[in-house]
Amino acid sequence: MSAISKERSQPDVVDAACRARVASRTLAKLSNQSRNELLMEVAKAIEEGSRKIFDANERDCHAAEPAVLAGTMSSAMLARLRINSQGVQEMAARVRDVARLADPLGRRLAATELDDGLVLYKESCPLGVIGIVFESRPDVVPQVAALSLKSGNAVLLKGGAEAAHTNQALVAIWRECLAAFPCAPLDSIHLLQTRADVMELLTLDRDVDLIIPRGSRELVQFVVQHSRIPVLGHGEGICHVYIDRAADIEKALRITLDSKVQYPAACNAAETLLVHQEVAAEFLPKVLSRLRDAGVEVRGCSKTIAQLAEQEVVPASEDDWATEYSDLILSLKIVADAEEAIMHIHRYGSGHTETIVTEDREAARRFLEDVDAAGVYHNASTRFADGFRYGLGAELGISTNKLHARGPVGLEGLTTYKYKLLGDGHIVAEYSSGARIFKHRPLC
Amino acid sequence: MSAISKERSQPDVVDAACRARVASRTLAKLSNQSRNELLMEVAKAIEEGSRKIFDANERDCHAAEPAVLAGTMSSAMLARLRINSQGVQEMAARVRDVARLADPLGRRLAATELDDGLVLYKESCPLGVIGIVFESRPDVVPQVAALSLKSGNAVLLKGGAEAAHTNQALVAIWRECLAAFPCAPLDSIHLLQTRADVMELLTLDRDVDLIIPRGSRELVQFVVQHSRIPVLGHGEGICHVYIDRAADIEKALRITLDSKVQYPAACNAAETLLVHQEVAAEFLPKVLSRLRDAGVEVRGCSKTIAQLAEQEVVPASEDDWATEYSDLILSLKIVADAEEAIMHIHRYGSGHTETIVTEDREAARRFLEDVDAAGVYHNASTRFADGFRYGLGAELGISTNKLHARGPVGLEGLTTYKYKLLGDGHIVAEYSSGARIFKHRPLC
Repeated sequence: MSAISKERSQPDVVDAACRARVASRTLAKLSNQSRNELLMEVAKAIEEGSRKIFDANERDCHAAEPAVLAGTMSSAMLARLRINSQGVQEMAARVRDVARLADPLGRRLAATELDDGLVLYKESCPLGVIGIVFESRPDVVPQVAALSLKSGNAVLLKGGAEAAHTNQALVAIWRECLAAFPCAPLDSIHLLQTRADVMELLTLDRDVDLIIPRGSRELVQFVVQHSRIPVLGHGEGICHVYIDRAADIEKALRITLDSKVQYPAACNAAETLLVHQEVAAEFLPKVLSRLRDAGVEVRGCSKTIAQLAEQEVVPASEDDWATEYSDLILSLKIVADAEEAIMHIHRYGSGHTETIVTEDREAARRFLEDVDAAGVYHNASTRFADGFRYGLGAELGISTNKLHARGPVGLEGLTTYKYKLLGDGHIVAEYSSGARIFKHRPLC
Repeated sequence: MSAISKERSQPDVVDAACRARVASRTLAKLSNQSRNELLMEVAKAIEEGSRKIFDANERDCHAAEPAVLAGTMSSAMLARLRINSQGVQEMAARVRDVARLADPLGRRLAATELDDGLVLYKESCPLGVIGIVFESRPDVVPQVAALSLKSGNAVLLKGGAEAAHTNQALVAIWRECLAAFPCAPLDSIHLLQTRADVMELLTLDRDVDLIIPRGSRELVQFVVQHSRIPVLGHGEGICHVYIDRAADIEKALRITLDSKVQYPAACNAAETLLVHQEVAAEFLPKVLSRLRDAGVEVRGCSKTIAQLAEQEVVPASEDDWATEYSDLILSLKIVADAEEAIMHIHRYGSGHTETIVTEDREAARRFLEDVDAAGVYHNASTRFADGFRYGLGAELGISTNKLHARGPVGLEGLTTYKYKLLGDGHIVAEYSSGARIFKHRPLC
């Protein structure tokens, strides 16, 4: 096995990562103004290169037709693959949007005077090299490349085979802009080609600092399982709406419906509705009627079934509580109190986004304190869990990890920090001997 | 192999982690005042329980004697294992120190008014459950248990077998305090016993949020290789001192000596001295004389050898540049300019701490910008890279990772954050339809 993997080693990927690392050092020195000018050039080049993009995209779409006919590719997938002139405009617009975001680099996170003439600064800086593995939609290329460039990171991209020509055309345009721009390193973007490339990429923990998978749960799980590099943004979303005893029923209906049906495929859509037993009699008939009108299948706990006419609600199995439907299905459980709701959330939830509907401020405060999740909401739809809605300006993904970045992740997720210490010949021996003592005066 | 590991599965560890997770939910609710009072109780109990600690420690030291006689345990290790009454006082004092630190929880990291009546807060909160794997010194137990409690985290500890009784006595005292304290969950501290326990612990990524190894490089590497859980604080330190063309020679001598000899076993001690060719003739004879007086062996590049009498300097091999000596040995290279110094640092350094000695502010600025490391210093000893010296109040370790925590890590490294969203029936559909638009007004 080890002999085989040696034979299969991918010198091109190793080489690309190594060159990306070198490029990242130059990229980190570019001013915010230069990075923004370059992004504006790229946006213009995407618009001006639309012919090349369409031609490449046509080849991809044409190549995909047999798969669609054979049923191995859905027509929805084909639709996501196809780029029209509006799509090109949108890609360019998104790149310009990224240029307009605040500079995530060089932010002073802390400053401390350690002693006379000895000052410590903590400042944000790029991570270095980002690997991004994604599926189908070629518009991911300019989007993530723009976010990486804005944050001073080099990027290695691997898209789906079905979009190979389109991705190549987009990366070629990007590299032409880099080549023409003063001081911008050409090797700050690379397109990887094969699945073997991805396997190799995931082992290059010396030259790649972060892996971001964008796509299906299967893709994310594959990347998490095989990566030696930290992985960002794999947010399985088993989100709950809890209707408290003191809920305003109208708000409860609005929030339940929005959380479930506004976009059921999203990870921040609700999968389970928890209802306090004291409001079940009033709330359930109303919410079931609305959910039925919206085409939602409801799977209820035994108490729900006992309380309601059987034809409305399917019995829920144990598996239902742990399932991300990503569809118009909702599991429903009647709970004795908020404590039981929270225990259910901690047992089955994925730590993504949880909301309580109540007019009881103390109950809300406790729920927000006690629930361990990236987002804890009071009287708001779970669907707000999103980088744009949070005002982050851009979203790389939603993380259910607790380290580095949690919840919706913006440009900040592509940065780290360094400590800068400015002295004047200061040495530790003088502090160890007691000749000098630290002041540790915060400067900001 | 998989059958064997199944047979050997450790229900006790799984159970302990699961109970620690439950305990962590209660712990997260304790006020800062309660956590501090509990720490003060523990400090008192350690002092009052000194007899039990000495007895247990005596058993460990007695059991270690054959290993010392057989030469499998050094007398230095035995010395680190032994606890005297001063040691007990220091353990208690350290716990009190932690109680006096600022509360790392509930800090407001950001606040944004998304729209009228819809406000988003980003607040620090505990990670949950921390696993700590350490060697020899039993004083790690109260120290890390105190830091975990202060930051609202439950903790699973696994110490060295040679300190088993002492560790047990310390954890027993801790648990007695927990049992007597209102609302404090007993399961917030567990002592694991065997190496098999550690192997099992490293797989429990659902119930354990972070692993911190404390000890030898071998221990750290073992943990990193086998952990499915994120690992904090494995700082291999190949640190460089670069003497620039415009260096003040007296400062250069002070900083070189302090960085190398003040405590050579530390990870922030310098391993390589880089000297600009234009100052080599003046600086090298002086620094070599001082280093020789301090008992340091110097291994030089070919230019150094050519420039100096051979008897003073051993030739450096390629391996030397990549070696953390942790000893009174220093490799030395003459470089053409700062750029070559930085290239050398990026090629061989571990991203820990790098310093430039120069009176040229622009050269210093460039070095601090361009060098990719947790700490980049100007005219200061590398030995300042330390949580206490940075004013963090406590140190969990020094991280050469770029994600979550970089450089010296204090209590903040044991926290994450959650987003709290407070609304009044807000739903996303109204924003998607354009009926409402976001304000995104920063509140702090």
